[in-house]
Amino acid sequence: MTIERGTDESRFRLAIDQLTGIAEMIYQQLDKGQIPKMVIPLRTKSNIRFDLKSGVWKYGKASGARTAKKLKGAQMLLRTMYMLDFIEDMIEQNKSSTLREMYYISEGWDKAKFTAQDESNLLAEDLEIVTGCMREDFKLRPEEDGARVMGNITIQEIDRKGKKKKINCRDDVGDSGYGIPYNVEKEKINFVDCDADFVIAIETGGMFDRLVENKFDEDAHAILVHLKGQPARSTRRFMKRLNEEMKLPVLSFTDGDPWSFRIHASMAYGAIKTAHLSEYLATPTAEFIGISASDILNYDLPTDKLNDKDIQALNAEKTDPRFNDEFWKHEIDLMLEIGKKAEQQALAKYGLDYVTDTYLPEKLSALGIMK
Amino acid sequence: MTIERGTDESRFRLAIDQLTGIAEMIYQQLDKGQIPKMVIPLRTKSNIRFDLKSGVWKYGKASGARTAKKLKGAQMLLRTMYMLDFIEDMIEQNKSSTLREMYYISEGWDKAKFTAQDESNLLAEDLEIVTGCMREDFKLRPEEDGARVMGNITIQEIDRKGKKKKINCRDDVGDSGYGIPYNVEKEKINFVDCDADFVIAIETGGMFDRLVENKFDEDAHAILVHLKGQPARSTRRFMKRLNEEMKLPVLSFTDGDPWSFRIHASMAYGAIKTAHLSEYLATPTAEFIGISASDILNYDLPTDKLNDKDIQALNAEKTDPRFNDEFWKHEIDLMLEIGKKAEQQALAKYGLDYVTDTYLPEKLSALGIMK
Repeated sequence: MTIERGTDESRFRLAIDQLTGIAEMIYQQLDKGQIPKMVIPLRTKSNIRFDLKSGVWKYGKASGARTAKKLKGAQMLLRTMYMLDFIEDMIEQNKSSTLREMYYISEGWDKAKFTAQDESNLLAEDLEIVTGCMREDFKLRPEEDGARVMGNITIQEIDRKGKKKKINCRDDVGDSGYGIPYNVEKEKINFVDCDADFVIAIETGGMFDRLVENKFDEDAHAILVHLKGQPARSTRRFMKRLNEEMKLPVLSFTDGDPWSFRIHASMAYGAIKTAHLSEYLATPTAEFIGISASDILNYDLPTDKLNDKDIQALNAEKTDPRFNDEFWKHEIDLMLEIGKKAEQQALAKYGLDYVTDTYLPEKLSALGIMK
Repeated sequence: MTIERGTDESRFRLAIDQLTGIAEMIYQQLDKGQIPKMVIPLRTKSNIRFDLKSGVWKYGKASGARTAKKLKGAQMLLRTMYMLDFIEDMIEQNKSSTLREMYYISEGWDKAKFTAQDESNLLAEDLEIVTGCMREDFKLRPEEDGARVMGNITIQEIDRKGKKKKINCRDDVGDSGYGIPYNVEKEKINFVDCDADFVIAIETGGMFDRLVENKFDEDAHAILVHLKGQPARSTRRFMKRLNEEMKLPVLSFTDGDPWSFRIHASMAYGAIKTAHLSEYLATPTAEFIGISASDILNYDLPTDKLNDKDIQALNAEKTDPRFNDEFWKHEIDLMLEIGKKAEQQALAKYGLDYVTDTYLPEKLSALGIMK
């Protein structure tokens, strides 16, 4: 199920309606003398399908049922009821909670208490899938720290006190940049003004700071975003909105190893864990300008040997539908062949300015983004 | 050796002078027909001593020599010469480099090339110890991301373009707060104005966001700082400066486990790895208001069992001079006795406001900081 994303209070109201719908469904099943159940898509690599219309990967038709026939299933349905109540309270009081706090809150839920945080996280995801809402609509937020942004874009953020603040991510912030909040939906942030040609998403803090110090945002007319490894949902959503609303191409600049390839894939095509949200989170036109196996050879970069886990991950990517194109097939095979990986900071071999004077301009010209 | 910390260019000039001094010393040794060597304090737990004057832990008298008698020592001296040259270049060009970038830069140093980043990190630390300067004076910076700050303090930051910016860490930033840059010395940031009674250093992002959402900074007249686990040097230095220059008490609010006790110890008394910088980084008057073993019992908190590594760490703390007082002896023994640890977010057991309505006010009143 996919619903239109409204602004302001409407999406929280919608979330409550959707959650109440689940409670009603279970009530009706019980009322008819049926054993209550919830049907949920299987969240596995084999059950993600490419959606032509949106250009991202979504869950397929395979599904499983959570039924009260078994004790564990009945317990999860009970927890669903408690969680629904908790979420409704938060929305009414304009509060939010981390997933970790919700886990501890459940201490007071008697038989519905979670025994591990995996269980509560999973239930939050299930509810997203069943309702078509996002965890953020339920006022549930992750532990992750927001990423940082540097560049000439002015954002209007509505702060915790409801006050509107205009912040230019170059002129109004210190050198560490603007911190992306955990909620980046329209009732929280909006783009007011932007003077940039593209967005460059950077895996490591060291490289982000390098590009900031070298003033690449100004010289190349770019918005720099620090991914902090596997990017948080708010970071992916932020870039998606920049791409859609400001019509800016998004480029991922990562290390050259199988894990970094996955960072790009989750940004561009969606992650397996959040395939139900691919339409909100993924930027299908995002291009990879990170270190490839070819770059390792072409730029003669310092490398590390692939370890067993790296090789395993590369082999897994060969059957991952998101990597099923000529470019990735070639690069994955080549990396396996040379048995080497390289970090983006390895470009410092040629000096601190090489990345901004040579590497990035070469990559960006090849894509027609920089002249 | 300890030197007075100047502002502006003077400290970089001083760093160059100190580094040149090392080169001269080695030259003179060679000139006299001696085998060159550098004497460096041993960096072990057994060689840290409490310095009564400054109230922090520093290195004792035990030392080792790095001599060119052995190939490895000779190589390290050669690397020192290359590094000196690199640092001088950076200072002249107003550039900085991550420790990782310096490691890759050494690819061009022929026989002086580092074979692992541990080696280059260690050499950077050695140079700090021998010169009495800080890594930041050498323009070397870590990968770590800066921590976040929320509260009514106005900072003047001199940005990468040399422009002065005044930023109020409550009114001029979004809900994710002000990001501490990697350099927090006087030539980079200064405190302009502050209206707060104390600083509260918070271990986890989830708890930082909780205190921000609950407006604890406003209600309790506090500056909130997110430590992000073991705090970066810039974060510790930032708090030390708040403590000294703004006369604000610093309190650490962490999880209740042996690793969090160490976070407090490194903030308050100095870390073993950076004992040569304790005077710059440690805040000896910092008080612990994190979860203690007694709190686990008094507040009846949800817990996890101590694992083998936790028990090992607690036992190691019993011989750590930094924990050699009544409070810590009692709390460490009690934690070993009950065999349990707890997270700060476990306070959510009693609801999302319990931490700001009950736990923190109780802790702060006990210290006479809040009425």
